Amino acid sequence: MDLKPTKPLSGFIELTPTQQRCFDVCANRMQNVLRGAGYNRIDLPAIERAEVLTDKDNWDEIETQMFLFQKADTKMGLRYDGTVGLSRYVAGHLNSLVFPFRAYQFARNYRGERPQRGRYREFYQMDIDILGIENLSENYDAEIVATLLRVYDSISEYVGGVCVKIGNRRFWNAMFEYLEMDEKQCRDSFILIDKRDKIKDFQDALAEIIGNDKAQIIEDVFAKGYKTFDGKSEKLSQAIAEMDEFMGILKSMGINNAEIDVSIMRGHSYYTGIVFEFFSTKFPELPAIGGGGRYENLASKFSKTKIVGVGASVGISRLLVSLMDENKIDLSEFEKNIDVAVLVMGKQNVQYAMSIVSKLRDNGIIAVPYLDTDKKFKNQIEYADKIGARFSMIIGDDENQKQIVALKNMESGNQDALTLEDAIKNIKVK
Amino acid sequence: MDLKPTKPLSGFIELTPTQQRCFDVCANRMQNVLRGAGYNRIDLPAIERAEVLTDKDNWDEIETQMFLFQKADTKMGLRYDGTVGLSRYVAGHLNSLVFPFRAYQFARNYRGERPQRGRYREFYQMDIDILGIENLSENYDAEIVATLLRVYDSISEYVGGVCVKIGNRRFWNAMFEYLEMDEKQCRDSFILIDKRDKIKDFQDALAEIIGNDKAQIIEDVFAKGYKTFDGKSEKLSQAIAEMDEFMGILKSMGINNAEIDVSIMRGHSYYTGIVFEFFSTKFPELPAIGGGGRYENLASKFSKTKIVGVGASVGISRLLVSLMDENKIDLSEFEKNIDVAVLVMGKQNVQYAMSIVSKLRDNGIIAVPYLDTDKKFKNQIEYADKIGARFSMIIGDDENQKQIVALKNMESGNQDALTLEDAIKNIKVK
Repeated sequence: MDLKPTKPLSGFIELTPTQQRCFDVCANRMQNVLRGAGYNRIDLPAIERAEVLTDKDNWDEIETQMFLFQKADTKMGLRYDGTVGLSRYVAGHLNSLVFPFRAYQFARNYRGERPQRGRYREFYQMDIDILGIENLSENYDAEIVATLLRVYDSISEYVGGVCVKIGNRRFWNAMFEYLEMDEKQCRDSFILIDKRDKIKDFQDALAEIIGNDKAQIIEDVFAKGYKTFDGKSEKLSQAIAEMDEFMGILKSMGINNAEIDVSIMRGHSYYTGIVFEFFSTKFPELPAIGGGGRYENLASKFSKTKIVGVGASVGISRLLVSLMDENKIDLSEFEKNIDVAVLVMGKQNVQYAMSIVSKLRDNGIIAVPYLDTDKKFKNQIEYADKIGARFSMIIGDDENQKQIVALKNMESGNQDALTLEDAIKNIKVK
Repeated sequence: MDLKPTKPLSGFIELTPTQQRCFDVCANRMQNVLRGAGYNRIDLPAIERAEVLTDKDNWDEIETQMFLFQKADTKMGLRYDGTVGLSRYVAGHLNSLVFPFRAYQFARNYRGERPQRGRYREFYQMDIDILGIENLSENYDAEIVATLLRVYDSISEYVGGVCVKIGNRRFWNAMFEYLEMDEKQCRDSFILIDKRDKIKDFQDALAEIIGNDKAQIIEDVFAKGYKTFDGKSEKLSQAIAEMDEFMGILKSMGINNAEIDVSIMRGHSYYTGIVFEFFSTKFPELPAIGGGGRYENLASKFSKTKIVGVGASVGISRLLVSLMDENKIDLSEFEKNIDVAVLVMGKQNVQYAMSIVSKLRDNGIIAVPYLDTDKKFKNQIEYADKIGARFSMIIGDDENQKQIVALKNMESGNQDALTLEDAIKNIKVK
């Protein structure tokens, strides 16, 4: 019989136990920050009705982006982001949720596209949102950014620091209005500004759309600073004041790694105000490692109630898994996670050894017994070494009879005959 | 435009924020126990190749049990249990894992069947396994049961206590051999014994298969006890000694809620030795809430290396979600999870208020600001009440000017003007 393949499908992630421990510690810290800021975890189904996931009918096209299937008469598929499910959930629980409602998701999403380097077909993403009915103060935009900075900070010892760049869609709307641009010009200029970093002759390209004079004025935003447009129109002044207030709140919270960068646009068309992107300062070669912004009418397809919000998402797998795969995270502290290997010499000592394992665990000590009792000492100590145990505890006839333990420090090699109480004290000193 | 449906698909779970907090606390505690016993978390893809999931070619039939789909030329599907993926993973990492290898999974699995009451199509299951190459001491069987009892114990304040019943496939093999039964008789008797509780005339049904005399002898196992067969054959004595040793280890670990019940069989055909099932003592109406046993050659379809193990699974959603849905878990402690609502009177006080929010969070206090600063005090305090905050902190012009805070105990209604330091002290007293 042919053996089946042991590799996962391409684009799917499989971590080593050591990598997984790092991932889990990071995931836990990040979520603790969100719980500490009063966010409710929402754990939504991975499968949604096809009509919830998409408005399109052209399945051939959609299938390249999504995992879709049919059970009985129902077309369904795997979620591709956190927004669709959240919209449905909030619309369905309008009466039981308290608004402004704080939600976070830490969940797997799925993309049907052919996998590329660093692009996964199954990946963890963290979504955080604050939602209001009808309206929501812009002050929350600053709070969500401050909270996310704290989230990144909680794992900075592994992934390094971050900075955040803040843009404002309303600034550009005001600018385009001030320059009396038509709808097509606005749309095309928007796309150009979004890609400004990647375009060689930005100003020339812009001039082709809106003419030299106006292109020069937009270039001035970058060359002379957006603040020089204060007073040019009421809406421009308002948008600039909005950014000032935003930065003022961050400053009051002790944050100094945030800056205004009006070239930040975020592709999604649903953003309507402040937008922001997080960048790694340790790994500047990475694209944005998270971002979000203000949106209006999140759940218009599910409810007549207008739900306004500010939200952000962090590509957890994209950040952590790719860094781990490239050996850019020091995993040494995750390699050794066992305190004691309990080695048992002879089956007559199993019960005594297991009573000790139980007491070690009662004391919060990570204890792993080696229970193939007929294996030689050499093999048993090799096991203790391989699992990275800090200590091994050797239980033989002598220890059993005297009701003591032999505690061996795996680094120094020192071995002592001790009472269990004293052994526990030794183990607890890290 | 018609609005889209807001309910999840039938058979899919959606918790309230309060239920989710309870679920997460339980999930965390259970996993902490496993980490404390040296288990490695393995987080496997939800999607596997179809050939990994099944040996069958009859898709119409399989589709009623699984979620299957095709992308490009590859047939794939959603995992339905933890065993298939673990087998593949272990076979693919034989050289990098240390054996005996301890693994646990806390993951979603999927079943395609039409949903029934208490049966989910997407559900969390915890799988724990200890795996050896070629062989693995039976002592680990007892250790895994002891560890699972500790897992259940960690959430007993919510779901009550459990007990575990232990059977032994080898006892019945020895018994059938002793009774000189043929293969078909063994198979049919096995099924009968597995369903003994549900069959009215167990002994008559058994007599039809193996005759009156032998049926009487098997009935004696239950009437007089399995120990009365000690000495009847070498294999029977051996199987009984095995159970004694198993119970001896549990006793040495201080466990007194375990008992031998040889009618425990577990349906799966791949078990070969000790089998066990956990039952709720608080909710005896529930079927087994977890179970497992010893198996041989886990990964024979993926590797020529023989992988022997003992494993168990716990139906997390089946246990927690169904109890929560029936209001059988007291969720009151999960309703109030916010320490302080920070209420801001006027936008001129936002920066002062946010500097306070930041400091509260630095101190591990769960603080939620209300930032629609033009809302009346009445509305703001209503919000504090609705989110279940223990305190509200009111920040107005007076507080800002004096650099103090007004702290209101939401239960007593008492309000004090305090420095932030004193307020933090008051909040930390629970």
